[in-house]
Amino acid sequence: MNVKRRDLFRLPFLQGAEPLEPVHRRPQPAPGSEPGVLVSEPGAARPAVTVMAYGPHELTEWAVDDYELLRQMRGKWPVVWVNVNGVAHAPTLAAIGDIFGLHRLALEDLGDVRQRAKVEAYGEQTLFVIVRMARLAPELDLEQVGVFLGPDFVVTFQERPGDVLDPLRQRIRASHGRARRCGPDYLAYSVIDTIVDHYFPVAEAYADRLDALEEEIVHRPTRDAMTRLHAIKRELMSLRRAVWPMRDALNAIVREPGPLVTQESVVYFRDTADHCFQVLDLVETYRDLGSSLTDLYLSNVSNRMNEIMKVLTVFAAIFIPLGFITGVYGMDVEHPRRAWWWDLPFVFTLMGATAVLLLAWFARKGWLGEDR
Amino acid sequence: MNVKRRDLFRLPFLQGAEPLEPVHRRPQPAPGSEPGVLVSEPGAARPAVTVMAYGPHELTEWAVDDYELLRQMRGKWPVVWVNVNGVAHAPTLAAIGDIFGLHRLALEDLGDVRQRAKVEAYGEQTLFVIVRMARLAPELDLEQVGVFLGPDFVVTFQERPGDVLDPLRQRIRASHGRARRCGPDYLAYSVIDTIVDHYFPVAEAYADRLDALEEEIVHRPTRDAMTRLHAIKRELMSLRRAVWPMRDALNAIVREPGPLVTQESVVYFRDTADHCFQVLDLVETYRDLGSSLTDLYLSNVSNRMNEIMKVLTVFAAIFIPLGFITGVYGMDVEHPRRAWWWDLPFVFTLMGATAVLLLAWFARKGWLGEDR
Amino acid sequence: MNVKRRDLFRLPFLQGAEPLEPVHRRPQPAPGSEPGVLVSEPGAARPAVTVMAYGPHELTEWAVDDYELLRQMRGKWPVVWVNVNGVAHAPTLAAIGDIFGLHRLALEDLGDVRQRAKVEAYGEQTLFVIVRMARLAPELDLEQVGVFLGPDFVVTFQERPGDVLDPLRQRIRASHGRARRCGPDYLAYSVIDTIVDHYFPVAEAYADRLDALEEEIVHRPTRDAMTRLHAIKRELMSLRRAVWPMRDALNAIVREPGPLVTQESVVYFRDTADHCFQVLDLVETYRDLGSSLTDLYLSNVSNRMNEIMKVLTVFAAIFIPLGFITGVYGMDVEHPRRAWWWDLPFVFTLMGATAVLLLAWFARKGWLGEDR
Amino acid sequence: MNVKRRDLFRLPFLQGAEPLEPVHRRPQPAPGSEPGVLVSEPGAARPAVTVMAYGPHELTEWAVDDYELLRQMRGKWPVVWVNVNGVAHAPTLAAIGDIFGLHRLALEDLGDVRQRAKVEAYGEQTLFVIVRMARLAPELDLEQVGVFLGPDFVVTFQERPGDVLDPLRQRIRASHGRARRCGPDYLAYSVIDTIVDHYFPVAEAYADRLDALEEEIVHRPTRDAMTRLHAIKRELMSLRRAVWPMRDALNAIVREPGPLVTQESVVYFRDTADHCFQVLDLVETYRDLGSSLTDLYLSNVSNRMNEIMKVLTVFAAIFIPLGFITGVYGMDVEHPRRAWWWDLPFVFTLMGATAVLLLAWFARKGWLGEDR
Amino acid sequence: MNVKRRDLFRLPFLQGAEPLEPVHRRPQPAPGSEPGVLVSEPGAARPAVTVMAYGPHELTEWAVDDYELLRQMRGKWPVVWVNVNGVAHAPTLAAIGDIFGLHRLALEDLGDVRQRAKVEAYGEQTLFVIVRMARLAPELDLEQVGVFLGPDFVVTFQERPGDVLDPLRQRIRASHGRARRCGPDYLAYSVIDTIVDHYFPVAEAYADRLDALEEEIVHRPTRDAMTRLHAIKRELMSLRRAVWPMRDALNAIVREPGPLVTQESVVYFRDTADHCFQVLDLVETYRDLGSSLTDLYLSNVSNRMNEIMKVLTVFAAIFIPLGFITGVYGMDVEHPRRAWWWDLPFVFTLMGATAVLLLAWFARKGWLGEDR
Repeated sequence: MNVKRRDLFRLPFLQGAEPLEPVHRRPQPAPGSEPGVLVSEPGAARPAVTVMAYGPHELTEWAVDDYELLRQMRGKWPVVWVNVNGVAHAPTLAAIGDIFGLHRLALEDLGDVRQRAKVEAYGEQTLFVIVRMARLAPELDLEQVGVFLGPDFVVTFQERPGDVLDPLRQRIRASHGRARRCGPDYLAYSVIDTIVDHYFPVAEAYADRLDALEEEIVHRPTRDAMTRLHAIKRELMSLRRAVWPMRDALNAIVREPGPLVTQESVVYFRDTADHCFQVLDLVETYRDLGSSLTDLYLSNVSNRMNEIMKVLTVFAAIFIPLGFITGVYGMDVEHPRRAWWWDLPFVFTLMGATAVLLLAWFARKGWLGEDR
Repeated sequence: MNVKRRDLFRLPFLQGAEPLEPVHRRPQPAPGSEPGVLVSEPGAARPAVTVMAYGPHELTEWAVDDYELLRQMRGKWPVVWVNVNGVAHAPTLAAIGDIFGLHRLALEDLGDVRQRAKVEAYGEQTLFVIVRMARLAPELDLEQVGVFLGPDFVVTFQERPGDVLDPLRQRIRASHGRARRCGPDYLAYSVIDTIVDHYFPVAEAYADRLDALEEEIVHRPTRDAMTRLHAIKRELMSLRRAVWPMRDALNAIVREPGPLVTQESVVYFRDTADHCFQVLDLVETYRDLGSSLTDLYLSNVSNRMNEIMKVLTVFAAIFIPLGFITGVYGMDVEHPRRAWWWDLPFVFTLMGATAVLLLAWFARKGWLGEDR
Repeated sequence: MNVKRRDLFRLPFLQGAEPLEPVHRRPQPAPGSEPGVLVSEPGAARPAVTVMAYGPHELTEWAVDDYELLRQMRGKWPVVWVNVNGVAHAPTLAAIGDIFGLHRLALEDLGDVRQRAKVEAYGEQTLFVIVRMARLAPELDLEQVGVFLGPDFVVTFQERPGDVLDPLRQRIRASHGRARRCGPDYLAYSVIDTIVDHYFPVAEAYADRLDALEEEIVHRPTRDAMTRLHAIKRELMSLRRAVWPMRDALNAIVREPGPLVTQESVVYFRDTADHCFQVLDLVETYRDLGSSLTDLYLSNVSNRMNEIMKVLTVFAAIFIPLGFITGVYGMDVEHPRRAWWWDLPFVFTLMGATAVLLLAWFARKGWLGEDR
Repeated sequence: MNVKRRDLFRLPFLQGAEPLEPVHRRPQPAPGSEPGVLVSEPGAARPAVTVMAYGPHELTEWAVDDYELLRQMRGKWPVVWVNVNGVAHAPTLAAIGDIFGLHRLALEDLGDVRQRAKVEAYGEQTLFVIVRMARLAPELDLEQVGVFLGPDFVVTFQERPGDVLDPLRQRIRASHGRARRCGPDYLAYSVIDTIVDHYFPVAEAYADRLDALEEEIVHRPTRDAMTRLHAIKRELMSLRRAVWPMRDALNAIVREPGPLVTQESVVYFRDTADHCFQVLDLVETYRDLGSSLTDLYLSNVSNRMNEIMKVLTVFAAIFIPLGFITGVYGMDVEHPRRAWWWDLPFVFTLMGATAVLLLAWFARKGWLGEDR
Repeated sequence: MNVKRRDLFRLPFLQGAEPLEPVHRRPQPAPGSEPGVLVSEPGAARPAVTVMAYGPHELTEWAVDDYELLRQMRGKWPVVWVNVNGVAHAPTLAAIGDIFGLHRLALEDLGDVRQRAKVEAYGEQTLFVIVRMARLAPELDLEQVGVFLGPDFVVTFQERPGDVLDPLRQRIRASHGRARRCGPDYLAYSVIDTIVDHYFPVAEAYADRLDALEEEIVHRPTRDAMTRLHAIKRELMSLRRAVWPMRDALNAIVREPGPLVTQESVVYFRDTADHCFQVLDLVETYRDLGSSLTDLYLSNVSNRMNEIMKVLTVFAAIFIPLGFITGVYGMDVEHPRRAWWWDLPFVFTLMGATAVLLLAWFARKGWLGEDR
């Protein structure tokens, strides 16, 4: 049993949750530093930059070394998608920002991974969207992704390599369909939609965990059930904090698409906003469920206590009086003695009667059964 | 009593509730797949498709095999109602969508049964409404129903055969009244209204369950009462999650009916939106009631504990001192002895007085009664 | 004490509350039935219909048998007030609806007593208002009242005979003042205002109950206090559910009075809306108070438990060691014996010292007093 | 200790709070009585009426007996401030209402001291404001004050003599500055601002009480701490209920000042609305603090229980086995006897070892310390 | 262990929190005093006033003694930043207010440190912003800062010397870049942005404290953990109360920048408003986390109680019956005696069997392990 308790903290998803593993703890620009000034993280390497440029009939893709090549591509392809796997290297951000005309404040926001999801228009030429990408690996990982949409480009910045966008890349490579014919606004939508849709398997994983916990709490509430419930609640809080502003941001695009988003794409963004709402709905329901499980757990613990107390009370209330009777007969007091065949049956009858009466009383109270 | 506990998990509506029986667990399109592309569920069969076409004076009804017949019916009948009992077979969806000009995103939404209720206009030609149909069978079953309203047709998609619309069908068949004279907007309203009105018996079933639970918690709080209360709370969460967006969707129709809904029908939709509000009101009240019952339960458990402790304390506090007295007299210590007719009455008087004093003290504290 | 518990469920207002006595359980139209079709409740008798027609100088009043007489009265009197004491008899509803041009959906709503309070304009000729009339009899009774306001009439439908409008009738009969000079909008206001003002004594009755409960919970928390608190909470939920939409409905009249309500009467409706707000305020405060009382109760129960445990612990911790000492001296082990005047004082001193030390320790812990 | 408990209910501010001392319990107009008809409270005497009339250079002040004199003053002074110390005497209300042209409904509202704070314009000539004046005397006293603002007058109605406006009167008497130069709108602002600012010392008194309670709950949680916390919570509810609508009312003046409030004064009213917001902020924080203290208290009570149980368990678990050993040696069973110098040391070693082992086990569990 | 408890109140951040160390307790203007009249705090000294005047190419900085010099600087430098380290000295406020044309009500608000953050335009010439500056020193310190923005100046008023603005000052001194080229609106933004960004390290300190607490509550819940949790909750309430209105104020600037804020700076203010939102998000999450930790703590305390009770029950339920058996054999009753080699084994077998049976029963119940 001791083992069990020690093992508790080796359970995969509690570990993931451990010391409030904070989404917001990487070195931040010091308060009071110049706004819009990009500062490299110490020791940050040049991030991997890949480009995918395509039109309805052609597609080219490569890893970029010389950023100036990007400048030359602009205007030659209907859609240029640049993906940067890291936000800690200031010169890269500055160079790419310069090529595509991205606002300094937006680039600075990339480096600060505490951002809430948001949409911001910088002039008529760029729309800047921040979203969070959710994965379970196995702990909840909420990576910030910045998406810049321009008239002929999409630039995406991720915190680190590895993402959920591979199915999208496959689709673009394979398809000569919609994905290739549409402009950069449809690509930006596709990126965001893929990220949002990835919340569903994550949310469902929590549903599974809550199911397992519920099963456990109903049948045999253990102490670590509550610890795990707390861990789940905490991750749901993070999830909610990630999704809530995303829904607002997408609704803002739907309401005021601006010049960069075609009316046709608005229908798609509306669909993604709906998906955000569904995720939020699920998360809220799981939170409510978590509260209800807490109540259930506490009531089960109290019931268990009642059961323990009933056992103690029944034993004590029966045997202490009987013990008293034996004590009375054990007193070293002068008393008239009678033969054993008279005295002994009497005392056993007395004790038996006492026990039976008390048992009957407890039975009437319903304390002898297990549940009541 | 043991039996009882084991049986607990065979109670009909707890079983229904069991492992968080999720409304959202059928195979979903993978995140990142092409939007608007319909994918069949593996092994999905062609769903049953029925058509009911009518005008004020004629009515025809049959099961459809060749979808092209549907195309030929358009324009020949004032109202064509096509009902599809399944959303997992992509070719059927595609064929029907093609005939009636339904938007691809809307058809895709049909396949994803996690949708919140919503209303969406796709151009001027179709209004797409998603609602949830509630049944107790005996567990809560929330089936997603998609309703397409066009200028001369209504197409309804259900997740599976079996629905609550039979009274409506009877009414159309029987009546030469309003139901037959009005256009497809009135039919769409009738479908939605019938579905919404079915929430009332469902909500009332929860009222009955809560009544029974309340009765039980007031008189004899058992442990499975709390488990059942939790199950009810969870189903009420689902119910609320189903109704809440439905109200918003219906209000959206009332506010902006668009070209497909006549002003006359708006009054009817407003009535249905009111019914949604009433259901929501009931559900919220039951949720509040559930919280209050939780408090009541916990306080009753604590009171019960107090009762148990009082019994233990009274027994222990009386008999342990008495036992001590017998112990003193049982000590194997040299002492001056007196005749029994002197010593024995003394010790019994001492013990009696102790017991009486303690009982009096407990009585003054009110610990001897059952309730205080 | 046993008696007390059994009696608990005979207390007047708990009985009223008993099995969630639902405001909404009379036979309802089956889901899917034709909207706007009036169905009689089986066995419903013709309800009593009274009419009061008046102008500044004349007044006539009688019980109506032949509804056609009502049609003849229209246009002859400035104000005609028809009151119907029952909504279960469809022919009556249909006849009166026909005479005054009331919309079918509104009439159908009358029969469904689950309605939330609302205001609905049906064209320019009738305004339909649903409110709830609160009474304590002694349990909370929330009767639905439908008010139709037309250019020269007011029709009120009540669920059953008996209402709170008699003071209003007296005022109309007696007065040649404002009540008689003003039009039907002022009469409709008067009806609604009288109904709303009747919530104040009802709310105050709950204040009294909560006062009594608070007194009881502070001084001697019993188990049925919590049961009664739960009953009060439940009735406050119903009250809130009745008043909340009423405020919205009245505000809707104030914001958009429509052609039937004169500007002068709007001031009066605003006043009534304010009263609704006051009632809501009171109810919300009582609900908060109920929560705080729940906390207080639970803490008192825990404190009581602590007190019980302290008594048990003090007795057990003192007498069990003493008993052990007597046990040691009672052992049937060979030991060197000494004269009684040496041994007996020693053992009693030992026991006395043990008891005194333990008592001192408990006193330092503050466990001997009653409160801490 | 007994004394303490009894004294609990003599503590000044609990007494104030005692049986929910309701702000709303004076005789009210019966529901259904004619709106706008003023009814005297039985036995109500003529209230004291004082008038202060001033311009930049002159000031006159006296107690009014003949209300007709007030009519003659109108138009002769830039500002006439009439203050009435009582709202129960209908003829006074009627007379003053008649002189200054006050609306009947507004006058009726004065008599009903359950009003929420509000602002109402009656035509272009009067603005009617209801606020609540807070005092601790020592219990919370929330007196309703009605303020009528006209083109050349301010009329204030208080429930009873005694107010917080004396500093304002002094300022008007003393100053030849702003207070005297400005019009009646500035006077109305000054009255309301003085009343609102008086909420700050009241709120701070609650902060002090909560500080004291917190100190007590952290160090030595007693049962009456919870009772007092409940009393504070209840008064904070009343406070919140008084301030919340006041903020709305003041914001309404700022948004739509109407013809009676000059643009210059709007800045001042905005400042007062800000103060309302600050008070509300404080009250909300104290309510949150109260909840947190409840949690803290309950956890402390549970901890205390744990401590008690540990003492009981340690004593019982050590001495009951030891007692059993003595019992074994006390059995009156034939057994081979050995010399005392052999048997006695054995049994004491056995008992000592048992005790030491158990103590070591409890120490390892951390049950011997006080806190864990 | 006793030491521990006493030490609890010496922990740095609890001390900081101690008697609700109120942000709002400095001597305030008495309610009813003339609005806009500045009153010195008794004994307040002249605060330190420093000025920093700069344009793109020049910068001058000095401590001001004669306020008239400030008047002479106006118009000579593009940006004049005056910083005043104290708000208690009325003549200084009056003099500076006079020089820069600041509104009296705004100056009065400076002296009242209970202000919520707000933005107020006084005419076209000054914008008045109140924000709160957060520091941990080590307790939470929320200092009020007033910022006046004019066409060519920024005046900042702090409660006391010491601030978080030194990095900003360094930047202005060092840079010939943006900070020097832009106007006073950019300086005002920089001041506010620096203050807002300082909330991040503060919020993160609370995250660290909650992490530590969580670790402690999961592994070994002590009583002072709850006290510290309460202290953290209280400080989070203060933090929330400080940030919430700040976000509203900044949004108000973004929505209606007015003539003093250039369109270019609005982008920057929007960024700062976003940061406020992030802080608020963090604080709300920590509050939710605090609630969840409270639940976890309470459940752990209850579990601990169950563990204690199980130990007691197992010991008592085994040894009390055994003691009873020894008591029976210790009775001084005449009985037929048998040889020791018969009687003694029998009684020991009886006792052993009893103990084993009871242990088996408890093991089946799972009471012998540590966790369940």
